[in-house]
Amino acid sequence: MDYVKPNEILKSMVEGGTAKASASAGQMLVRGFLGGAILAFATTLAFTAVSQTKIGMAGAIIFPVGFAMIVLLGLELVTGSFALIPLSVLARRASVGRMLGSFGWAIVGHILGCLVYAVLYDLTVTKMGSDMANPLAQTLISTAEAKTIAYKSMGAEGLLLVIVKAILCNWMVTLGVVMAMSSTSTIGKIAAMWLPILTFFGQGFEHAVVNMFVIPAGMMLGAKVSVGDWWLWNQIPVLVGNFIGGALFTGVMLALSQKGIKLLPGRNVPGTLDSAVSAEQSA
Amino acid sequence: MDYVKPNEILKSMVEGGTAKASASAGQMLVRGFLGGAILAFATTLAFTAVSQTKIGMAGAIIFPVGFAMIVLLGLELVTGSFALIPLSVLARRASVGRMLGSFGWAIVGHILGCLVYAVLYDLTVTKMGSDMANPLAQTLISTAEAKTIAYKSMGAEGLLLVIVKAILCNWMVTLGVVMAMSSTSTIGKIAAMWLPILTFFGQGFEHAVVNMFVIPAGMMLGAKVSVGDWWLWNQIPVLVGNFIGGALFTGVMLALSQKGIKLLPGRNVPGTLDSAVSAEQSA
Amino acid sequence: MDYVKPNEILKSMVEGGTAKASASAGQMLVRGFLGGAILAFATTLAFTAVSQTKIGMAGAIIFPVGFAMIVLLGLELVTGSFALIPLSVLARRASVGRMLGSFGWAIVGHILGCLVYAVLYDLTVTKMGSDMANPLAQTLISTAEAKTIAYKSMGAEGLLLVIVKAILCNWMVTLGVVMAMSSTSTIGKIAAMWLPILTFFGQGFEHAVVNMFVIPAGMMLGAKVSVGDWWLWNQIPVLVGNFIGGALFTGVMLALSQKGIKLLPGRNVPGTLDSAVSAEQSA
Amino acid sequence: MDYVKPNEILKSMVEGGTAKASASAGQMLVRGFLGGAILAFATTLAFTAVSQTKIGMAGAIIFPVGFAMIVLLGLELVTGSFALIPLSVLARRASVGRMLGSFGWAIVGHILGCLVYAVLYDLTVTKMGSDMANPLAQTLISTAEAKTIAYKSMGAEGLLLVIVKAILCNWMVTLGVVMAMSSTSTIGKIAAMWLPILTFFGQGFEHAVVNMFVIPAGMMLGAKVSVGDWWLWNQIPVLVGNFIGGALFTGVMLALSQKGIKLLPGRNVPGTLDSAVSAEQSA
Amino acid sequence: MDYVKPNEILKSMVEGGTAKASASAGQMLVRGFLGGAILAFATTLAFTAVSQTKIGMAGAIIFPVGFAMIVLLGLELVTGSFALIPLSVLARRASVGRMLGSFGWAIVGHILGCLVYAVLYDLTVTKMGSDMANPLAQTLISTAEAKTIAYKSMGAEGLLLVIVKAILCNWMVTLGVVMAMSSTSTIGKIAAMWLPILTFFGQGFEHAVVNMFVIPAGMMLGAKVSVGDWWLWNQIPVLVGNFIGGALFTGVMLALSQKGIKLLPGRNVPGTLDSAVSAEQSA
Repeated sequence: MDYVKPNEILKSMVEGGTAKASASAGQMLVRGFLGGAILAFATTLAFTAVSQTKIGMAGAIIFPVGFAMIVLLGLELVTGSFALIPLSVLARRASVGRMLGSFGWAIVGHILGCLVYAVLYDLTVTKMGSDMANPLAQTLISTAEAKTIAYKSMGAEGLLLVIVKAILCNWMVTLGVVMAMSSTSTIGKIAAMWLPILTFFGQGFEHAVVNMFVIPAGMMLGAKVSVGDWWLWNQIPVLVGNFIGGALFTGVMLALSQKGIKLLPGRNVPGTLDSAVSAEQSA
Repeated sequence: MDYVKPNEILKSMVEGGTAKASASAGQMLVRGFLGGAILAFATTLAFTAVSQTKIGMAGAIIFPVGFAMIVLLGLELVTGSFALIPLSVLARRASVGRMLGSFGWAIVGHILGCLVYAVLYDLTVTKMGSDMANPLAQTLISTAEAKTIAYKSMGAEGLLLVIVKAILCNWMVTLGVVMAMSSTSTIGKIAAMWLPILTFFGQGFEHAVVNMFVIPAGMMLGAKVSVGDWWLWNQIPVLVGNFIGGALFTGVMLALSQKGIKLLPGRNVPGTLDSAVSAEQSA
Repeated sequence: MDYVKPNEILKSMVEGGTAKASASAGQMLVRGFLGGAILAFATTLAFTAVSQTKIGMAGAIIFPVGFAMIVLLGLELVTGSFALIPLSVLARRASVGRMLGSFGWAIVGHILGCLVYAVLYDLTVTKMGSDMANPLAQTLISTAEAKTIAYKSMGAEGLLLVIVKAILCNWMVTLGVVMAMSSTSTIGKIAAMWLPILTFFGQGFEHAVVNMFVIPAGMMLGAKVSVGDWWLWNQIPVLVGNFIGGALFTGVMLALSQKGIKLLPGRNVPGTLDSAVSAEQSA
Repeated sequence: MDYVKPNEILKSMVEGGTAKASASAGQMLVRGFLGGAILAFATTLAFTAVSQTKIGMAGAIIFPVGFAMIVLLGLELVTGSFALIPLSVLARRASVGRMLGSFGWAIVGHILGCLVYAVLYDLTVTKMGSDMANPLAQTLISTAEAKTIAYKSMGAEGLLLVIVKAILCNWMVTLGVVMAMSSTSTIGKIAAMWLPILTFFGQGFEHAVVNMFVIPAGMMLGAKVSVGDWWLWNQIPVLVGNFIGGALFTGVMLALSQKGIKLLPGRNVPGTLDSAVSAEQSA
Repeated sequence: MDYVKPNEILKSMVEGGTAKASASAGQMLVRGFLGGAILAFATTLAFTAVSQTKIGMAGAIIFPVGFAMIVLLGLELVTGSFALIPLSVLARRASVGRMLGSFGWAIVGHILGCLVYAVLYDLTVTKMGSDMANPLAQTLISTAEAKTIAYKSMGAEGLLLVIVKAILCNWMVTLGVVMAMSSTSTIGKIAAMWLPILTFFGQGFEHAVVNMFVIPAGMMLGAKVSVGDWWLWNQIPVLVGNFIGGALFTGVMLALSQKGIKLLPGRNVPGTLDSAVSAEQSA
């Protein structure tokens, strides 16, 4: 049946990372564009649910719709790649250069997709800029400020705080990517990936791609946030934290959980990650 | 198992578009009739849910019942075809004439199906016209006015606004069609297509077929909307926006996400869309 | 996988109708008895949900439990057969006599099953007739009156109104039967058939078998409804409307949607319904 | 796929009954112990849900968790066997003696399991007897009284009332057992059996095994119920009613629905239940 | 299809226990680390849901997200192993030494994982310690106190109470592990294991691994709980109770339910647990 055992999931992670590292710049750009825009759609949907019910968990339960679309359609979230491509690099199946290239093009795509949706959504929610009464407009403004200048006002502690929240966030987001690999059935993938995504969103952690939409969307509506605030106090530290959470707690630790402490990049020794994958290849 | 990989989904999109372009006028007419009427059933169900709970998201969660029936039974929504047939044309698997014919017959079918349901539903909700106390009657009237004369009162900006909302709407609706192709299992299809449909309906975007029911149903109940208002300030710009959203953001961009920027209609060159499909054919 | 394509669904409809027309009187009687009683169980469950939550949609979401049991266990609802057996007759796979016999025995079974449940449930809800304080008793009385003497007070318009509501009802109920055929998996069948059943119940349309329980159950509790009121102002026109909705909008139109306008009973000409089924048979 | 047709379900019922009649006393005792205790877990969970939400249906929706565990793990509920073993006896696949032995050992197991859970749960809910403030304690007391002395106060009518409620209850509970046989997939079994179990619990009918926990648990907490009240006014009549509901309305009538009125225990005549099963055996 | 029969589930339990007993210390440490941390993520998610809705059951319904991730990804919860490895020892497939080693490394991993999450989460919820206004901080403090000094204040009865709650807890948690084995499909596993986990969490029983997070997390925030209180009045008795609940009520009794009272570790006699597994091995 469709359940995939943990050992096979680990192989899928390495292979998935390798495939992402091998995709062309154009593919990564378009996949990143769509991934960013679809995640933004889901973000405004979740904000709408919270606005209507006054229950944060209602937004969290509904938010994974976007993530599920992105994964099932083979699109891109750079945060997810943070757990996969580093494993491929460790397994000598991808170069550091390709990894950084993949990250870069995906991020450019995310920014473009998020900005396009932000413009279109802001026009909609304000009736072409003529009406700020929609509570969603206020939500976007206050969220953009809470995610930037609120940290800035705390100084260095704010920077640490945002990194911690980003680590916790992407620990779960990348488990979403991995959980989707636990099934070869569509309903199984949807259900499995829903769990960690709901877990992160319900607790208000910091996700780089969501922020690539929320912060500029709020800025366009009048949030008192500069481009510097956006990047220095959120986007850059969140990317750092997301990378730590994804690469360390999901990527490396899941590999260790299967292979034990012998897992070191090495001379194709039995028990190491690349030997495990190589064995698979030659089989 | 039943999950269909993105590459195969792209082929299904092209083949689905070709099949739609090849259907007879009679088939498209009947499929469009049923598609329109069933979507209208779902619309009044969603309005009922909102009326009872005062929570818009309750309507959004329940609205996809109609879309799921339409897709599973092989019926027609022209808005869905907007993402598929253009791809078939690009892949040289369908002519522009067949595409326009398919759109036309489907739209005629939608209008007929929506009008039949509108008459029957309006009779029901008003007890044969004798009682306007049902809150659903008021909902239909105010929705019909909000979707037409409210835009008209904004002039050119209203026209742009309705197009933007239609683009955002059909980006998601067509993803519903595509998501349904991500599984060969009924439960997988239902779950997958639920996600984008719920996303669009929950945020109040503009969908041409829903409007083919809501506006005339409201007009029959006394909404102050003329046929000209209906078509000029809603139906025509919404069809335009729906086409852009479906053909560009879903059709072309999903194809680019798989094939990269080499995707151009062309001389059966490896890497182009028609060569991809041709390879499939000859295999 | 388990998804059944529209073309195959159409064949299943014709074969299902043929099987129903071939069942013995005893089988139809028992299947109708159980079908009626189980639908009545679901009806009181839905009424309980509405009574507790004051939200009509809560009853609609829960009501399909009964329909799902009936379909999965191969029991009978005559309203479902209205979409299937006429197709078998058109395809020359069943006679009109067998069709009417099947309808008749099913209806007799429904009435018996509904009456048995009505007696047992009324005893329960009134504590052997000693206590009318349970709000469900009041619900049954007022529903029985709303479904009969309210229409009677409107005269001919009331008769038309009840027929229109019955058409809309069974359009959806029969889609429930058809949707169940869209999967060969139990979970797929349950999910698929839930959608149209919820759609009809949530909007208060008129279903003949539900009424065979609700009206007599209310009468036994004291509703001011005569047997004549029950049949003339509800049961007979609802059966007529249910037949129109099921046979025309689901049976014939779904067949046309697949086969196009060439679908006429005929000389085994390619493209007609019986040739389609015959081809299947000889394959 | 996993859906099991009605004809095959009937065979599974007979075979299931035969297997239950053949299990050893020790197996039945342990299975009954676990079945009783797990159902009791689910009962206190459902009471907790109702206590927190004040909506009875919330308890009904959650209660089937216990039933699903029992069925999937091959444990025992004597109420379920009421529909299966009598069919095996009719089909000459089990003796009346084995049937009664199976019922007896299962009931002994249920009582033991329910009492063990009642003691442990009562200790928990009252903090080792030191604190009666938990609303669940009050719920158990009042439910135990409502299920015994309330009927006693009605005299013979109370006895009839409890039997009627027990018939309606086990008609549904046994359909839960049968619905689980409609799928060979775990998710299909869970979904299918959920439906009738929710239906019975939501309407407050009387289930013998639930009562084997609720009444003594309430008595230990101070309910004014004697052991005689428990058995004479509830446990014995509920077992009788549960047997009628399970054996007649589910066991015999489902068999008749498939085989028609020819279904009589007999001389291996084609069309009878034992010939049907025998044919299966020799195939 | 994917449903696994009870007999096979029992074999999976023994084999699962053997595999856990054979894993390396490093694997158990990492699996325990991730298992503890992910369960802690789910705990704060559930607390958030309760805080927002004021309905305890909302937390219970959402809490199993963590358990499902742990099981599907092959990570470790020592409480689950309590039902599996003892069976392997009884079946002579694992030694007592390996069992204790596995328990020990898993517990060390749990403590590390829970502490890491506790530090990161506490930093987040208090904005780097600068703000105690978040209601979740108060929830953690009061829960930590309720789970330790409240028992201590009851003396010996408190010790018994916490053991009883721990028995009831892990009876269900281990059924979660077993239920996951009832399917080879991902969606089936998720649905099946959800049921008992929801049952335990909804009723406030005591789970050792949840407490390894909640109590120190509360202590760091200022709960008046010493390390001695934590271990003497909660962690040690909860581990004892969890072991009893898991090994006895799930492990041994489920084995007895299949094999009957002949199930004794022995001389490979037919009918005993190790003969059953051996037969499987040689087949």
